[in-house]
Amino acid sequence: MFRSHTNGELRITHKDNSVTLCGWVQKTRDLGGMTFVDLRDRYGITQIVFNMDDDASLCEEARKLGREYVIQVEGVVTERSNKNNNIPTGDIEITASKLVLLNASKTPPFTIENDTDGGEELRMKYRYLDLRRNPVQENIKLRHQIGLATRNYMNNLDFLEIETPYLIKSTPEGARDFVVPSRMNEGQFYALPQSPQTFKQLLMVSGYDRYFQIVKCFRDEDLRADRQPEFTQIDCEMAFVDQEDILNTFEGLIKHLFKAVKGIELPEVARMTFDEAMEQYGCDKPDLRFGMKFNNLNDATKNKGFKIFDEAEIVLGICAEGAASFSRKQLDKLTDFVKRPQIGAKGLVYVKYNEDGSFKSSVDKFYNQEDLKIWADSCNAKPGDLLLVLSGELNSTRKQMNELRLHLGDVLNLKNPNEFKPLWVIDFPLLEWDEESNRYHAMHHPFTSPKPEDLNKIHTNPGEVKANAYDMVINGVEIGGGSIRIHDKEIQNEMFKLLGFTQEEADEQFGFLMNAFEYGAPPHGGIAFGFDRICAIFGGSDSIRDYIAFPKNNSGRDVMIDAPSDIDKTQLNELNLALDIVKV
Amino acid sequence: MFRSHTNGELRITHKDNSVTLCGWVQKTRDLGGMTFVDLRDRYGITQIVFNMDDDASLCEEARKLGREYVIQVEGVVTERSNKNNNIPTGDIEITASKLVLLNASKTPPFTIENDTDGGEELRMKYRYLDLRRNPVQENIKLRHQIGLATRNYMNNLDFLEIETPYLIKSTPEGARDFVVPSRMNEGQFYALPQSPQTFKQLLMVSGYDRYFQIVKCFRDEDLRADRQPEFTQIDCEMAFVDQEDILNTFEGLIKHLFKAVKGIELPEVARMTFDEAMEQYGCDKPDLRFGMKFNNLNDATKNKGFKIFDEAEIVLGICAEGAASFSRKQLDKLTDFVKRPQIGAKGLVYVKYNEDGSFKSSVDKFYNQEDLKIWADSCNAKPGDLLLVLSGELNSTRKQMNELRLHLGDVLNLKNPNEFKPLWVIDFPLLEWDEESNRYHAMHHPFTSPKPEDLNKIHTNPGEVKANAYDMVINGVEIGGGSIRIHDKEIQNEMFKLLGFTQEEADEQFGFLMNAFEYGAPPHGGIAFGFDRICAIFGGSDSIRDYIAFPKNNSGRDVMIDAPSDIDKTQLNELNLALDIVKV
Repeated sequence: MFRSHTNGELRITHKDNSVTLCGWVQKTRDLGGMTFVDLRDRYGITQIVFNMDDDASLCEEARKLGREYVIQVEGVVTERSNKNNNIPTGDIEITASKLVLLNASKTPPFTIENDTDGGEELRMKYRYLDLRRNPVQENIKLRHQIGLATRNYMNNLDFLEIETPYLIKSTPEGARDFVVPSRMNEGQFYALPQSPQTFKQLLMVSGYDRYFQIVKCFRDEDLRADRQPEFTQIDCEMAFVDQEDILNTFEGLIKHLFKAVKGIELPEVARMTFDEAMEQYGCDKPDLRFGMKFNNLNDATKNKGFKIFDEAEIVLGICAEGAASFSRKQLDKLTDFVKRPQIGAKGLVYVKYNEDGSFKSSVDKFYNQEDLKIWADSCNAKPGDLLLVLSGELNSTRKQMNELRLHLGDVLNLKNPNEFKPLWVIDFPLLEWDEESNRYHAMHHPFTSPKPEDLNKIHTNPGEVKANAYDMVINGVEIGGGSIRIHDKEIQNEMFKLLGFTQEEADEQFGFLMNAFEYGAPPHGGIAFGFDRICAIFGGSDSIRDYIAFPKNNSGRDVMIDAPSDIDKTQLNELNLALDIVKV
Repeated sequence: MFRSHTNGELRITHKDNSVTLCGWVQKTRDLGGMTFVDLRDRYGITQIVFNMDDDASLCEEARKLGREYVIQVEGVVTERSNKNNNIPTGDIEITASKLVLLNASKTPPFTIENDTDGGEELRMKYRYLDLRRNPVQENIKLRHQIGLATRNYMNNLDFLEIETPYLIKSTPEGARDFVVPSRMNEGQFYALPQSPQTFKQLLMVSGYDRYFQIVKCFRDEDLRADRQPEFTQIDCEMAFVDQEDILNTFEGLIKHLFKAVKGIELPEVARMTFDEAMEQYGCDKPDLRFGMKFNNLNDATKNKGFKIFDEAEIVLGICAEGAASFSRKQLDKLTDFVKRPQIGAKGLVYVKYNEDGSFKSSVDKFYNQEDLKIWADSCNAKPGDLLLVLSGELNSTRKQMNELRLHLGDVLNLKNPNEFKPLWVIDFPLLEWDEESNRYHAMHHPFTSPKPEDLNKIHTNPGEVKANAYDMVINGVEIGGGSIRIHDKEIQNEMFKLLGFTQEEADEQFGFLMNAFEYGAPPHGGIAFGFDRICAIFGGSDSIRDYIAFPKNNSGRDVMIDAPSDIDKTQLNELNLALDIVKV
């Protein structure tokens, strides 16, 4: 062993012990006859003292140490005269008697501090140095803890972790696959799994009945800020269950994780149908840390001569508590916000419910005080509140109002990062109409079961069929989703037809699953959580990238190792592939 | 919930309880007025009784059930008159009052029994049915248990499980990579990792100091019977350690796994240098469940006029205890065995050490009784034993003798499947000469540290340089291997040169690692265990395939899902690839 202790564990109780420590030089200070070195490892920082009077040449050596040098130090634990209450080892220091330089370091391109001076690009290129910083190490540890706590919880419930294959079959439905050319099977390709969906269903057919896996998945999509081409799922499936069983089981998991990893007792997981969520919040993942539900003001606003409202499919109002004091400038800013092209509202109507009970609105020309009182009552407003009203076509008005609501949550400081409001959104539609391809797409995926009571509408009114599908949402972030699956071959066949598969396509892509359904498939369902996203939520961050040891950038590149990259012509030849690029 | 209990949990203490069970019909028997159904799930089998006198129509329904039908049954737990001591639920049966058919089943293509009538190919095609069989389910459960026990053990030692990327950079050194064309980076490819080697070393540079990961790895090799293109490793790395620390830590892991999962106290892990292993067993992974060490008989056999021995580089003898009674036929079979082309010996000399102290050999013409007594003494033989002697060039004679020894282990029944003899093989050579490419290859990998005391030989006599590299072997199977790594940029550069890398190649492929070594790389080392192989050893099987839920066949195909397969022309176009196959 190179060390007797880590840099995080020595206390005053170790006084006078001889110890050996290893680590990185965080910083050095020369004070008169003494040199102080802050020695860092993943466990903490310990102060090392070199004394000119004790050993001048040793002290000289210490003075040559640069930032991030790797050293080994022998010495004695001594009580500090100047205690540092900010670190757990702050009561002691090591009076050094020996110093071994294990490796030198060039000056790092950015500081290894909590608040570094390095920009994102530089930190990505030198990710191995960025990973030394405390906040990043905390994220990586958090991820480890959540993973282990998940596994032990699932094991205690008799779930088996079963590895499913990574080299599988490409299925054009859904997102784009990454493919892997096969050398041994000329001209053919494997695909990397977008999820282990079909395999976990096969495991249910095989009788494993409670499966889970923390597993990498792959999607070749054009990347947004918060997407990665490879990401990790907590993938779960159960047999002989209905939706209620799944909601209860995984509510249990999430509560356990919050308790075990963060010491937080999560409140009951609220439930809301998809329709309610759209009606009340204009989105299927509402942030419940604050109110401002939508209110339908159609009755209250129509036929008063205000053409914009009269012609609107919907007039929606929300009540911003205590915001009647907003200045003209603040209101203009809100209007600018909703009129941004990404949001696309034509304008914003406000009504101030003054403390004295009077109203001041941007539409006073059309609505008198009594009219506005009716609006206010419809929105449960009280004096001091501000009403904000948008109107237009139903879906786009909901989207705009959702953006406005979330924006007000920021403006009014309503998104408490230490509060967690979990929610099940249930009863999703089975299908959604896609204008571009002019056909229905599966809202969740093609294996999701329609609600039995809606089966009769599947041909007459497919858009109205609800599914036994559910999402878990925390603070406006979807952290997981799943469904009860179809386990009947006929219904699955119907579903493929609805989704525009020919019989041949269905057979070729999912024949193995359809065959499996002929040999005793049990009722089953499941859920998949975004593991990266759970880590981010637990860590209080918006970005999953901060919780991945070696993430890729928005072009899907790993700029540290410089991948993807060109490969040898011989490799291509072995794979019977040719590059088909017109080089300019 | 579809069920109140599983089919494995009801006991006589549940008598008179009303229960609901679900599962698969294992078999049905009609006996006069009663129909018995064995209902199976992953937890066990419970007998259900339908009584014609109680409910004729229910009983009629039960009579229609076929094998592997999925049903739900309500009934009352009743004491059996005819108890079955072979199953834990054998004291009770369920007197059924309700039967729901959840799904029918076609007759499976093979029986779902411990000893099935299905051949390997059929079972692979219907893997989801094969996975229903008890022995396969036990393997999958075992794998789950070993994985979880590993994770908890490593966590208790402060190891962090850190996920490394799957879409990385292709490096032509070593085995062949699977590559993944990048759509967003035209003409470029990712590679799937053969192991997370460079990433775990970077994590050490990043200060994580104790890393592990249970992780899929990929090698595009021509497959042998027990290789898979994707396989799972327990991948580990530690910083600030020497070889001794690693051996102790992972000896601890293996002992813990045997204790926790199999209830077996593993003996001390023996240690043997690579040179000793080659000398005494002719291979670097000796099976220590039995003796038969090699004995050098050069001195004892030469210059007695037997030309074959006189001209041989080495004469090796082993002693098969108690085998002097082998018949002529048995001895001929052994001779045939070593003369098979795969083994390639020219012949086999035997010496029977008879119970009366006399000797009978196949070379009596050249060696008298006293000569043979010297052979016997050299091999520690006693009356009743059989000496077997091979000769020729050193390396090939060792290989042949190793095969003969292992074969005798089978013949003499010396490989006790319930005995586990772990061994560290240490001090591997750093390099091995490759005749084909006419250069040295890294025996372990290019990041393995030469022993410091051998560094001076690295240019003058590279073949004699030993490495701080080690393998763990159990019962003749290598279950893991690793090394202390190079952490010095200069030595790593030297190593790349020795292995025939130009500076440009080294920079292009491993530049990120070399750069990382400039910023304070700590001394570090690690090990990787073959997870599939550990599962097989624990399960007492030779085949890793039995411990993988969805394995591939020897052509790397998943015959169940039929992958790899052709992909759409549009997919190829998006990837700017063309198939370059001359179709015949």
